[in-house]
Amino acid sequence: MSDDEALAAITSGDRRALARAITLVESTRPDHRARATELLARLPRREALRMGLSGTPGVGKSTFIEALGLHAIAQGHRVAVLAIDPSSARTGGSILGDKTRMTRLAQDERAYIRPSPTSGALGGVARRTREAALLAEAAGYDVIIIETVGVGQSETEVAGMVDMFLLMLLPGSGDELQGIKRGIVELADMIVVNKADGDLLAQAKRVQSDYAAALRMLRPSSAEETAWRPQVALCSALHGAGIGELWDSVSQFSALMRQSGALERTRAQQAKRWMWKEVRETLLERFCTSPRVIRLIAECEDQVSGGALTATQAAQRLLEAYQVSAEI
Amino acid sequence: MSDDEALAAITSGDRRALARAITLVESTRPDHRARATELLARLPRREALRMGLSGTPGVGKSTFIEALGLHAIAQGHRVAVLAIDPSSARTGGSILGDKTRMTRLAQDERAYIRPSPTSGALGGVARRTREAALLAEAAGYDVIIIETVGVGQSETEVAGMVDMFLLMLLPGSGDELQGIKRGIVELADMIVVNKADGDLLAQAKRVQSDYAAALRMLRPSSAEETAWRPQVALCSALHGAGIGELWDSVSQFSALMRQSGALERTRAQQAKRWMWKEVRETLLERFCTSPRVIRLIAECEDQVSGGALTATQAAQRLLEAYQVSAEI
Repeated sequence: MSDDEALAAITSGDRRALARAITLVESTRPDHRARATELLARLPRREALRMGLSGTPGVGKSTFIEALGLHAIAQGHRVAVLAIDPSSARTGGSILGDKTRMTRLAQDERAYIRPSPTSGALGGVARRTREAALLAEAAGYDVIIIETVGVGQSETEVAGMVDMFLLMLLPGSGDELQGIKRGIVELADMIVVNKADGDLLAQAKRVQSDYAAALRMLRPSSAEETAWRPQVALCSALHGAGIGELWDSVSQFSALMRQSGALERTRAQQAKRWMWKEVRETLLERFCTSPRVIRLIAECEDQVSGGALTATQAAQRLLEAYQVSAEI
Repeated sequence: MSDDEALAAITSGDRRALARAITLVESTRPDHRARATELLARLPRREALRMGLSGTPGVGKSTFIEALGLHAIAQGHRVAVLAIDPSSARTGGSILGDKTRMTRLAQDERAYIRPSPTSGALGGVARRTREAALLAEAAGYDVIIIETVGVGQSETEVAGMVDMFLLMLLPGSGDELQGIKRGIVELADMIVVNKADGDLLAQAKRVQSDYAAALRMLRPSSAEETAWRPQVALCSALHGAGIGELWDSVSQFSALMRQSGALERTRAQQAKRWMWKEVRETLLERFCTSPRVIRLIAECEDQVSGGALTATQAAQRLLEAYQVSAEI
């Protein structure tokens, strides 16, 4: 298939063409990268609602995405689900697995579920996911859900590529930290307390009011731009309770962001940040793979950790080694 | 004065020698930088308690530092106060002013107050402050207080160079955000509600319990390493109320960090991070000052903001221009 044909097939909603294009952007082969870049440049821009979702394993993310996705589809939307899973690049296997997690959603032709790639270069995970989201949007999916397991910087990265970031919690004790990393609560535009049913309902309500109070003490991401204040919602994804109300809140958030112009500004800012992030990462990668630098890194880290060198001195030593490499 | 004499004078506690050495590390002249690097490498390592303090203008930071500093001195400590004020590099004038802010502390010979520099390269602010702290430690000050006004990244930078980070709040309404930036509450090892006296006492207690509840929902910085949980303390710096109790908490935190080994690990981590931060900043600075890159930056930012280029494409264009520059 030519690149023209591939583009036409993707934008007409051909699922296999979309899958192949995502595989292309996931590839690290230079010729694939070049073709992917060309393809991405030619994609029509379509406006989708981009949502990020994070939560520790066991919180019920798959069940929730399935329930929310089916609800959105019933409202006339088309839903794509992507996963950002930095661990898969290390372990060689995707812990987010396959479509068996969301069987009903996976069977619906108005939904597209992309398992996270099972291999690939570290550091390229975020880029791949952003590009896969652009492809899914061009293919006509107007709700993109990017799911993350909280490894490393992945939540921050997902929050930086979506319009709305959701954090899922369990109805645990308020004093338990539920494995949430530092700084994540402050990224959330909405917190969802799942499994709010049966015996756990009272506890879920307590978590809701605790986090609602906590959020009032924190600066919301969109406070400057819109009248939106982060909310804490209850739901039972398994029984479908609270899903409709939650979707209404999501729609309200989305409308507010669009009407105020905050969406456009946020996306422009995000794009610029990603550009600079890629520049910085490439510069650092070249630095760290320079043979003279490689030989010094461990030594400099040890000396600076132990106090034998100041951070500035150690940085200078590394930078001088790099300079010499570049001059040879 | 030779460098040997300067070193001897600093370590013997000569205040003028310390002031001159700090001026040296603040200088951007290459010969001064070289001498500063040499001097820093030869400093004896002494263990001080490094505290960071942030809060919006008007919260009473100067009064608080004076009260806490005098209390620490009465307990047998020697106290150095440094300010990190990124705005001064831009405005050409230090908004933190001079020693007239803390007259009693400034007059005590067991205290050393360094006004923030009135000029200097942006980006070097954090490095200068870290190096000034090392000099003050070598001069025998065993409590270092680094004060910041919340501009840009300065709180994160201060939190990354101290053992304990304090955030000061006013007894305002719990729903007011008091100008605190996103992510700052989660940096705090301790929150101090100042001006907790007279008519404001009841309101201060409400802020205390609101933030205490909020902190329970957030992951503390030292949770993994120690049994420390962030606290919210009340004080009235003007009347000296609560200062003794607060200092006891600070001492308790410090002892916990030392005994658990967390202090040593944190400092080694911090030093490594600063080393890499300096490497990254230098690489980016070289990139951004390359003539071919300079000419392209605005265009690439515009195109990526407007959606005409993807972040990856724009980054590639800039990196190719840099490559060409390097090859010429």
